[in-house]
Amino acid sequence: MAEVAPAPHAASPPTLFQKVRRLSLELAAHLSDADATVQSMPDASPAKWHLAHTTWFFETFVLRDHVPGYQLHDPRWPFLFNSYYEAEGERHARDRRGMITRPTLDEVRAYRAHVDHAVLRAWPDLPDEARALVELGCHHEQQHQELLLTDLTHLFAQNPLEPAVWPASTRAPVAVPGPANWIEHGGGVAEIGHGGAGFAFDCETPRHAVLLQPFAVADRAVTNAEWAAFIADGGYDSPGHWLADGWAWARANAVRAPLYWEGDGEGWTSFALDGRRPVDPAAPVAHISFYEADAYASWAGARLPTEAEWEVAAAGADPLGGDQLDGPGPATPAPVRPGARPGFFGGTWEWTGSAFRPYPGFRTAAGAVGEYNGKFMSGQFVLRGGSSASPRGHLRASYRNFFAPDKRWQVTGLRLARDR
Amino acid sequence: MAEVAPAPHAASPPTLFQKVRRLSLELAAHLSDADATVQSMPDASPAKWHLAHTTWFFETFVLRDHVPGYQLHDPRWPFLFNSYYEAEGERHARDRRGMITRPTLDEVRAYRAHVDHAVLRAWPDLPDEARALVELGCHHEQQHQELLLTDLTHLFAQNPLEPAVWPASTRAPVAVPGPANWIEHGGGVAEIGHGGAGFAFDCETPRHAVLLQPFAVADRAVTNAEWAAFIADGGYDSPGHWLADGWAWARANAVRAPLYWEGDGEGWTSFALDGRRPVDPAAPVAHISFYEADAYASWAGARLPTEAEWEVAAAGADPLGGDQLDGPGPATPAPVRPGARPGFFGGTWEWTGSAFRPYPGFRTAAGAVGEYNGKFMSGQFVLRGGSSASPRGHLRASYRNFFAPDKRWQVTGLRLARDR
Amino acid sequence: MAEVAPAPHAASPPTLFQKVRRLSLELAAHLSDADATVQSMPDASPAKWHLAHTTWFFETFVLRDHVPGYQLHDPRWPFLFNSYYEAEGERHARDRRGMITRPTLDEVRAYRAHVDHAVLRAWPDLPDEARALVELGCHHEQQHQELLLTDLTHLFAQNPLEPAVWPASTRAPVAVPGPANWIEHGGGVAEIGHGGAGFAFDCETPRHAVLLQPFAVADRAVTNAEWAAFIADGGYDSPGHWLADGWAWARANAVRAPLYWEGDGEGWTSFALDGRRPVDPAAPVAHISFYEADAYASWAGARLPTEAEWEVAAAGADPLGGDQLDGPGPATPAPVRPGARPGFFGGTWEWTGSAFRPYPGFRTAAGAVGEYNGKFMSGQFVLRGGSSASPRGHLRASYRNFFAPDKRWQVTGLRLARDR
Amino acid sequence: MAEVAPAPHAASPPTLFQKVRRLSLELAAHLSDADATVQSMPDASPAKWHLAHTTWFFETFVLRDHVPGYQLHDPRWPFLFNSYYEAEGERHARDRRGMITRPTLDEVRAYRAHVDHAVLRAWPDLPDEARALVELGCHHEQQHQELLLTDLTHLFAQNPLEPAVWPASTRAPVAVPGPANWIEHGGGVAEIGHGGAGFAFDCETPRHAVLLQPFAVADRAVTNAEWAAFIADGGYDSPGHWLADGWAWARANAVRAPLYWEGDGEGWTSFALDGRRPVDPAAPVAHISFYEADAYASWAGARLPTEAEWEVAAAGADPLGGDQLDGPGPATPAPVRPGARPGFFGGTWEWTGSAFRPYPGFRTAAGAVGEYNGKFMSGQFVLRGGSSASPRGHLRASYRNFFAPDKRWQVTGLRLARDR
Repeated sequence: MAEVAPAPHAASPPTLFQKVRRLSLELAAHLSDADATVQSMPDASPAKWHLAHTTWFFETFVLRDHVPGYQLHDPRWPFLFNSYYEAEGERHARDRRGMITRPTLDEVRAYRAHVDHAVLRAWPDLPDEARALVELGCHHEQQHQELLLTDLTHLFAQNPLEPAVWPASTRAPVAVPGPANWIEHGGGVAEIGHGGAGFAFDCETPRHAVLLQPFAVADRAVTNAEWAAFIADGGYDSPGHWLADGWAWARANAVRAPLYWEGDGEGWTSFALDGRRPVDPAAPVAHISFYEADAYASWAGARLPTEAEWEVAAAGADPLGGDQLDGPGPATPAPVRPGARPGFFGGTWEWTGSAFRPYPGFRTAAGAVGEYNGKFMSGQFVLRGGSSASPRGHLRASYRNFFAPDKRWQVTGLRLARDR
Repeated sequence: MAEVAPAPHAASPPTLFQKVRRLSLELAAHLSDADATVQSMPDASPAKWHLAHTTWFFETFVLRDHVPGYQLHDPRWPFLFNSYYEAEGERHARDRRGMITRPTLDEVRAYRAHVDHAVLRAWPDLPDEARALVELGCHHEQQHQELLLTDLTHLFAQNPLEPAVWPASTRAPVAVPGPANWIEHGGGVAEIGHGGAGFAFDCETPRHAVLLQPFAVADRAVTNAEWAAFIADGGYDSPGHWLADGWAWARANAVRAPLYWEGDGEGWTSFALDGRRPVDPAAPVAHISFYEADAYASWAGARLPTEAEWEVAAAGADPLGGDQLDGPGPATPAPVRPGARPGFFGGTWEWTGSAFRPYPGFRTAAGAVGEYNGKFMSGQFVLRGGSSASPRGHLRASYRNFFAPDKRWQVTGLRLARDR
Repeated sequence: MAEVAPAPHAASPPTLFQKVRRLSLELAAHLSDADATVQSMPDASPAKWHLAHTTWFFETFVLRDHVPGYQLHDPRWPFLFNSYYEAEGERHARDRRGMITRPTLDEVRAYRAHVDHAVLRAWPDLPDEARALVELGCHHEQQHQELLLTDLTHLFAQNPLEPAVWPASTRAPVAVPGPANWIEHGGGVAEIGHGGAGFAFDCETPRHAVLLQPFAVADRAVTNAEWAAFIADGGYDSPGHWLADGWAWARANAVRAPLYWEGDGEGWTSFALDGRRPVDPAAPVAHISFYEADAYASWAGARLPTEAEWEVAAAGADPLGGDQLDGPGPATPAPVRPGARPGFFGGTWEWTGSAFRPYPGFRTAAGAVGEYNGKFMSGQFVLRGGSSASPRGHLRASYRNFFAPDKRWQVTGLRLARDR
Repeated sequence: MAEVAPAPHAASPPTLFQKVRRLSLELAAHLSDADATVQSMPDASPAKWHLAHTTWFFETFVLRDHVPGYQLHDPRWPFLFNSYYEAEGERHARDRRGMITRPTLDEVRAYRAHVDHAVLRAWPDLPDEARALVELGCHHEQQHQELLLTDLTHLFAQNPLEPAVWPASTRAPVAVPGPANWIEHGGGVAEIGHGGAGFAFDCETPRHAVLLQPFAVADRAVTNAEWAAFIADGGYDSPGHWLADGWAWARANAVRAPLYWEGDGEGWTSFALDGRRPVDPAAPVAHISFYEADAYASWAGARLPTEAEWEVAAAGADPLGGDQLDGPGPATPAPVRPGARPGFFGGTWEWTGSAFRPYPGFRTAAGAVGEYNGKFMSGQFVLRGGSSASPRGHLRASYRNFFAPDKRWQVTGLRLARDR
């Protein structure tokens, strides 16, 4: 998941701003300075860096650019906390973010307080353009909240002691769901993309017509129980079900189960921010790559939905419902409740069969924020729906998340589709 | 460009078969045993390997599977000359194909003669299914003829002496063309994909309807003169025009001009199978990656066409016309003739903005030949049109070639498109 | 510098033990949890790991093996804090030591207190063998004290802010020394190696006779001023002065000055634990590789001394004198005082021309501690003398330090030698 | 094995010159153009390159520098065929030598004839210095003859067909020898190095006194039968016998037997230029690294000899005797004949425990030929004695061959030593 682009209309940011800024601190509240500083792989960033980078975003694009006389909290820090904005100049190498033991976590918290105060004080006088950037910054920070949790999970998974940051969720056991049902769609011309009021990232626009063949999508995501059956049936040993790149990737990396899984067909466990625990057979499978998702779909005699199919199918679902992030905690996907109405939001992000490419008529924004999404439109696949680690309120049907097909440290799963 | 899948109906193969088999030998006629044996990079294969692999294809899928009592020419060779068919078992590592100094080029020629003889003798008795595989094998071999030329070019480019295999084409100088014209299209529902009689690869099917927004495409490819202007204007130094992966790739590999180019803005030369020669400003630019094509389009205020746009625009053009391969020779793209009718075939393959993914309703063939195209449907972009190194008769409007976005040793260029 | 082997006779450890254990804590007193946790490269270890590993050494080889009923502080920690002792079983990967955010620095301090208490309580009843291991553990920990400082320097150098842990040393300016003088030696049979009472590592034994040709060594190390002259004279651009491996290494890594130096011939600065400061022309050059030292010696018309020459020349010098570590601080080499008596200890370790190989008759110790030095006797060169970061009391004339020829994050310099 | 440096006195080169030049052609007589062109790894060179490089040596240092009016055969070829002489300017990258399909093998043969003719015609008028360079060139070419054979072996081993260049040697079976006997030496001052008349490389000088402790060396090399016992006893699984670098190397490369061996403890086979054949238990083990040799010696309760011990022990042996190369053929080591007098020459090169470092008083030659040996004096271990692939007449007791400790494509074995 990369970052974000300006919305056409700015909503009521002070409330959203304060809520979002508070949640980031809450997510990091249990972390030691070291927990928040170490980087476990080039794809991941330290929690401290997330806290600082999201703050740098407001400081740079709102305060520096729109508040006369604003003085940078520390003029040396933009070099540290710019992520990838070429237009903002040179920056610290992405794979060296874990070397920054100073500033400390407490100093970064002070940076946050300083910038929060400045934004709120400036708010009454901010021009609309700047208010839109505040709103953009909030949605940007929500993306980083999810990354903060998944990056932390990856970090703690590297520790042989497998520490738990939070106690395990207390969930009533749920029966393993029966076979998924198919939601049928007759095809034809439909519209996708963001077109109305409310915030959206640039890559969701413009809303446009697409022509669909008749199709069906499952009414729920694939579960851990179903995934265990795929493993038991030799799914990871059957090249005929795999894309060539996926097969090479799985061989080179000895991939034989979802990330964080250990065990055998009898008793799988998985690691998360509540430590290592038995895999819940009723929960949606998470931490799989696009390659694995595609191979599973082939094994199941189905396919992945396109992003257009997904969006059309999800159009009537409630984006505020489902298993999303409401506060600090391990944020592992909850089991699928039998008999529940079909849900498309939360749980796990769902890999689609669509490469992340621009919509017809797509335009990037002017200025540095134009680098948010457009420049990532190669080598990635679209994911839809959101996960148990997505802050509630952040999602919508037109939302396009994207990752390279071999990535699996995000909360990623799949939903099956088929031709009619 | 990967390989091929079975056609619904087999045409008259003995004629095509004999013609195709002869051309491969002619293309390799000037090569020494060493020229035909060395592998210059993992992506490329030795000429001898191409000659043998295409023969293995006929021996395996036609003779072994459909001719009772056929004895393999050498039972140890399938291990050497299987390319990537998992269903055919273990095989020699792709990046070690250049280690095979024995069998010699002459022994491979004898292998070809043996298999040719057996196919032609068996032909009268071959069932339809086998005849379809012979036809498939011919189109497969035509693909390898183009690869043989581009792989050879890459090999000789590694030699500091830059040897010429053939003398330079004698071409009358042509005036540099003026600005391209736009071919306008009103959008709406159109059909793409292969649907009629005649041969096509599996990935071109099924023919299906698509919905297009109004668009325009240029009536010719981008020329070397235009590309030199892009360079002179700092196109390779402007991150704002590049995809993030492309920018990283260009920096990591110090890419500052098309592959094989040397010089500066004043006087570029390029290497081909006729040696190093001045770049012809009127010829289409070749040997660029998708990343470079995409950056150029951004710099030019345009974009790449989608493959559907390209196919719809090219629907009326003659796939047998244009600058294609008619026999042995350096096969460099000819200059664009001013005033010529718009052509879409030959010259250079044209990068489109479409990721190589399955068409709605796509099905792979049963058996090992089902591995031809479907398993390569990730990480690649579609190219359309064909090149000066494509054997004439091999191309059609629905043809989908594909390569990863950083590859540029093929004869690859671009044509601009824009929204209306 | 690897680790250590048992001494023939154990001295009075409680005093040494308490002094050594205290210094480690003092060196780490200014560090945050993050400072102490991050690993900057595979060669370096986190400060927290040094504090824990040295404690594990006492817990394992003294308490576990020699104190009946001792319970491990945490039975999961030996996996984390074993360095390289194969006989002690599986262990955490060396290049992943920086992933261990938990246990925290405070928890490691508690581990130290627990083990210190147990050792001191057990001391009266410890058998001689265990007392010898306590002494060995103290010398082992002194080695890690030096590594802790050099590893920290490397870590802070990765931070673009270049933080200072300590204020700069307040040193009176010293005149740049004139040319070094030569200490002549007539050659002949001499003895080297440790042979008397007192502690030594296994690799320093047995004491044995060597035959030397007449030689001379300089009476001081090469200074920063002399090194700047080497740079200014094109020393880094003259392959004729370099070993082939060294030239390839310098080209591949763009090495053009000692590690941590920045600037040009006019004004060099260097980074250390007191931040970035001007290079002192009168101080010995530090942070150079063997390859650089060897090239410098060639450029100067001299050579590196062999370790036997060095030891014979240093035999009469005081190993307690010179510029060594007496307490927490940046530990940068002090300038050479003009007119001082020739010193061989402290300042910088001095690369010799001797590969680290066993002395005639060398035997490794029995048990896990036998892995200390012997198994590192390939691919490394011997350094002699000790540095400003070596705890005073740790050095002696027979001491053999060793590193691979491309390493330069230690406080390493050189002294010239020549044939007579 | 790197290259060579000028000898003090030139012998009678025309005879040696003609003999050496002829043997190179004979060794390559069976090769196809492709066999002679392909490079199997960066350490190895194509046979064609060996034939050309040795010719370039005479053309450059004799003809160009000492024959007025000599015209280079092709002025573009020195760039291709300079190996590593920085003083001779830029050159083709070592790991790209296999890309040079042109000039062809026949063209290189013509180059050889041209240079041979010019050298012989110029001989009567050559100054002594040039005659010494002709002699040096002959010894240089003999080194490359051995490399040509070992590089070819490596190349053919990459081919799954494992072709045989020559038929197998016809050798009468020999009984497996009993335990080796120890040759005792009382130690004391001895002299090593080249000091008399006759040719030697620079690194063998100056002759100088060394002081030896009493020692013993075995009267023969370790056999394949003994090596198989080491494997069967778990030698490759016992870290306690291995140097740390060696253990890491063996794990990373899955080394469990000598290079080219296949099978199990019951029935080992090995590949050579006569194809894959059963390992002869009575022959000396070959194609082992220094790391393996050192581990074996530890397992056997012994050690490797130092190069001084080896040279002193071999001083009385006949360097023209033993199993050396007399003409074209597979050049595999012959079995040790029971009851034979102790031999030190031929069979396999023997790893010593000595790092390759300069002798006291060593000086490199002036000019480009000074780059022969001195610049390789880091990271390598000395081998002594010569092999079945060393041209007879090329060896002597003072000869110092050297390779990095992980290399094993040369004909390398070991002889045990011990302290007395």
